[in-house]
Order: sequence, then C-alpha cells, then structure tokens
Amino acid sequence: MILFQDQIIEREEVLIDLEDRGYQFGDGIYEVIRIYDGKPFTLREHLNRLERSADEIQLPLPFTLDEIAQHIITLIQRNSLHNGQVYLQITRGAALRNHSFPNEVNPVLTAYTKEIDRPFEKQLTGIKAILTEDIRWLRCDIKSLNLLGNVLGKQKAVDSGVDEAIFHRGELVTEGSSTNVFIIKNGVLQTHPPTNLILSGITRNVVLKLASELGIEVKEEAFTIHDLKEAEEVFVTSTTQEVMPIIEVNSTAIQKGTPGEITKKIQAAFSAEITLSK
Amino acid sequence: MILFQDQIIEREEVLIDLEDRGYQFGDGIYEVIRIYDGKPFTLREHLNRLERSADEIQLPLPFTLDEIAQHIITLIQRNSLHNGQVYLQITRGAALRNHSFPNEVNPVLTAYTKEIDRPFEKQLTGIKAILTEDIRWLRCDIKSLNLLGNVLGKQKAVDSGVDEAIFHRGELVTEGSSTNVFIIKNGVLQTHPPTNLILSGITRNVVLKLASELGIEVKEEAFTIHDLKEAEEVFVTSTTQEVMPIIEVNSTAIQKGTPGEITKKIQAAFSAEITLSK
Repeated sequence: MILFQDQIIEREEVLIDLEDRGYQFGDGIYEVIRIYDGKPFTLREHLNRLERSADEIQLPLPFTLDEIAQHIITLIQRNSLHNGQVYLQITRGAALRNHSFPNEVNPVLTAYTKEIDRPFEKQLTGIKAILTEDIRWLRCDIKSLNLLGNVLGKQKAVDSGVDEAIFHRGELVTEGSSTNVFIIKNGVLQTHPPTNLILSGITRNVVLKLASELGIEVKEEAFTIHDLKEAEEVFVTSTTQEVMPIIEVNSTAIQKGTPGEITKKIQAAFSAEITLSK
Repeated sequence: MILFQDQIIEREEVLIDLEDRGYQFGDGIYEVIRIYDGKPFTLREHLNRLERSADEIQLPLPFTLDEIAQHIITLIQRNSLHNGQVYLQITRGAALRNHSFPNEVNPVLTAYTKEIDRPFEKQLTGIKAILTEDIRWLRCDIKSLNLLGNVLGKQKAVDSGVDEAIFHRGELVTEGSSTNVFIIKNGVLQTHPPTNLILSGITRNVVLKLASELGIEVKEEAFTIHDLKEAEEVFVTSTTQEVMPIIEVNSTAIQKGTPGEITKKIQAAFSAEITLSK
C-alpha cells in the first residue's frame, strides 16, 4: 500500500500527472526514514529536516509534521513493516509548465515502504570507495529531488566496482554520493561542517552526539583528499548504511585496509542507540 | 492528445509511475520545440541536442531520432497545432529506487503540445531582468530535468517584478534562468562560450549564424557584470522568447532603456529565418 496525500491506497491507484513539477523540474523534497522492529528511528529529526527543505524552496507542506508522522505510522502498520524504510517525497504538484512557481500550488505527497536488513556483513568488512569531483549545485543542504549529480557519482562507483563515490571540490572532501564522510586523524573524529555544500545527515548528527558521549574529540571542519587517504580510519554514514567503514579509496588501502577501532566503538554505540529507541 | 512512448493517447491514459526515476531523481532530459504554422523550427538541431544530453547521462534513447521526429509531427497533426510548442522529455523510467542506474532500463517518453503566440509586444518594448548568483551544478550543458536552480532563479525574478534572472558565477555572467544572454560592446556581439556552464541554446546558435551573415562581429567569450550593465545593447534568446531585448538590469537602464539597433536587426533576421523555414 502507498501513502498518497493523506490516504493509504493501492499502488495501482496512485496517479502521477505528467505535468507534476516533480517530474518536469525535480521540484520537490524527500526523506528516507529507517524502521527498526516496526518503529521509525529519529522520525522527528527527519520531519524537521523535511520542513527545513520545504522552507528553503518555498514549498508549502500539505500537512502538519504531526499529521505526516501519523500517516507514516499508519503506513508502516498497514504494510506490516518490521525492518525496512519509508521513502517519502513531496513535490510542488501539477501545473502548466513554467519555471516560476504556480499561483495555486497543490503539493503531491507519496510514500511507500521497503523491507531491508541492516548491512551487518558490510559493516564488519567495510566497503571501498572512489573519489570524484563534486559537480553538484551549491544548495546540497536541501534534500531535493535534483539528484542527477549524486546519481552520476554513484554510477561511477558502481562502474569502478566499488560501493560509494566520495565527492571533493578541489582539494576538499565534501560528502559521499548518498552518505556523509568521517575520518579519524590524530584520534580526532572529523567531518565536513553542515554548510550549503553537504546534506546535514540525521545519522551524521547522531554519530557526532554518540562520539562526544564516548569521549572522542569531534571537529566539524573540511578535510583534504590527502587527509582522507592518510587517515587512521574512515567511515561513511547514512540512514540505511548506518556507520559503514571505508577500507579503500581509489584502490589505496586506508591503513591496513580493515575497519578501525574507533569506527567499531561508534558502530556499537549506534547499535545500542537503535536498541534504546525500540 | 499526448505522445506517450510511440503512441498518441488521451491525457487520462498517461500513467507515470511514482518510482519513475524522472520523479525521484530528475533523471531525464527534455527539449522544447517551437512550431510555426504547423511546422517544427530547427527540429533536427533540437533532436541532436537531445541525443547529446542522453549520451552525457548514459541514457539509452528508446527510439531513433528519425522515429522521434515522426512521432512529433504526428502529434502536431493530431492536435492541429498551428503556432505553439512541443514539450518532450525522456526519463530513465521506473525501477526500484537506487541512485545507480537500474540493470534493465525502460525509458519513458512523454510529449505534449501547447498553443503560444510569438511575444511581439515584449520583443518591441523589451523586458527587465535581475542578476542572481549561479548556484547550479557544473553540467549546465546537459538539458536535464534537474531544474530547481533555474526554478528558484526565475521565481526570484518574478518576486522582483521582472521577467528574467541572469545568472553570474562571481563576476562572470553565464546565462539566464531559461535563456542565453548576449551583449553588444564596441559594436561586437558577445555571449558566453558553449562550455559546461551554459546550455548551448538552439536559438543562441541561430543568432550567432545570423549575426555573422549580417556582418556583425561575434565573440564567444564570458563577459562581466560590469560589461553587462555598461553594454550598448543586451538581449536574451530562447526557443519561445526568440530574440528578446533586455532594457533594465537590477533597476538600472541599459543605455536609454529601449531596445538597441543591432538587436532589432537580429530580430528582423530571425523573423525572416522563421518565414524561410515554413
């Protein structure tokens, strides 16, 4: 079943108009929310970010955050989702095609669920990544449907036989194609600050909080490609990958090419956080 | 009637899947083709650009360019379109949501017509524009559905009570939110070269050809905001606006605030070109 506006309906009943601005301009926003044991994880944080994205592109939300939260919970129940994710997007809706906003906006909300497992095996072994120039726009802080730059980055990773593409603008690393990137340097956990050049990930922010609680020094400051390659440890974070070690960048091993000790501590703390939330 | 894949069908029959990658990633390309007296203008040039955009994002076209041309002509006839436009887009189609390309791609082509008149009145009086920082990605040469930067630029123009937003990266002018920008400086016609920072407009290229034929010196080189404001003449070009004088930028008049003589010559040559094509 699909959440369409505020109704739970069959997928076949969902009608997307060919002039929906999501389809012609990528004029919309989205969130991916992780569900553990039937309960949404950090739902409030995702909805707050959804609201911020909407504000930044002046998109009026069709429902209150509380209403959206309730619809998401209903959707999870109707689909008997235990472990998986909810994908939710809101577009500026259908209108005669014009770049500027329509006078009357009728936003379109769609959301659906997917069962997924936690990626334990990869979290144990770690994954490989390539570097690629960040060609995206200068408002990566908005979680919008304009994702072609991310798509092309991820595809380049797949074509290179690895799991993730790490973006850099000149010498400075920004983020992954669907993740935030962290390094450990001199025992300090470092990641790009939440500027217009990255999406401020919900998992990123949980990790920063957990690291502080573990007594790990944290620095939100951009680091270089050199810092990345020479790091003591590297990992990426996302809603579905959680805390994922990077063991190789551009065919060069990070240290011994195995997940690092601080990364493992943070993974354990993140798992405990999930357990607490249930 | 709508062109959906290779069929002409009723609009109500067009079904866009909520997991169409055009809807979730803006993963697709488009063209807008001008129809004068029932005949498409510069159709081959538009289709060649469509093919180039497809190649650049590794999107397999579902039909040959000749087939698409034939379908467009059938659509024009079925809708009895005399003067207007055809909007055509092709997405990477529906697939389980993943940033990387699906293993099996089923592109989705949609196209429809709209009646529009040539904007004679505005072409006589000219229009006003504002300047705004170009925040778009670094592949503006691809005519993709990732248009949120253009949308926000155009909306800023509308909010400022003018018709167009002219983008600049730092001091250098790139293009308009849906147009290419030209200036006359010391009698020379100047516009941004066709790099990754602009879309190489079909009308832009027709104008460059016509200007050369008129004996006007042409320079494809980026110019500054200062050059723009101090220009002898400014105009923008697009498929629907053709050759449109800019008489004011950020509330400052261009010279006397009326369309310039060289602009008028190019407008006349463009009208003659349209007549020739019929």
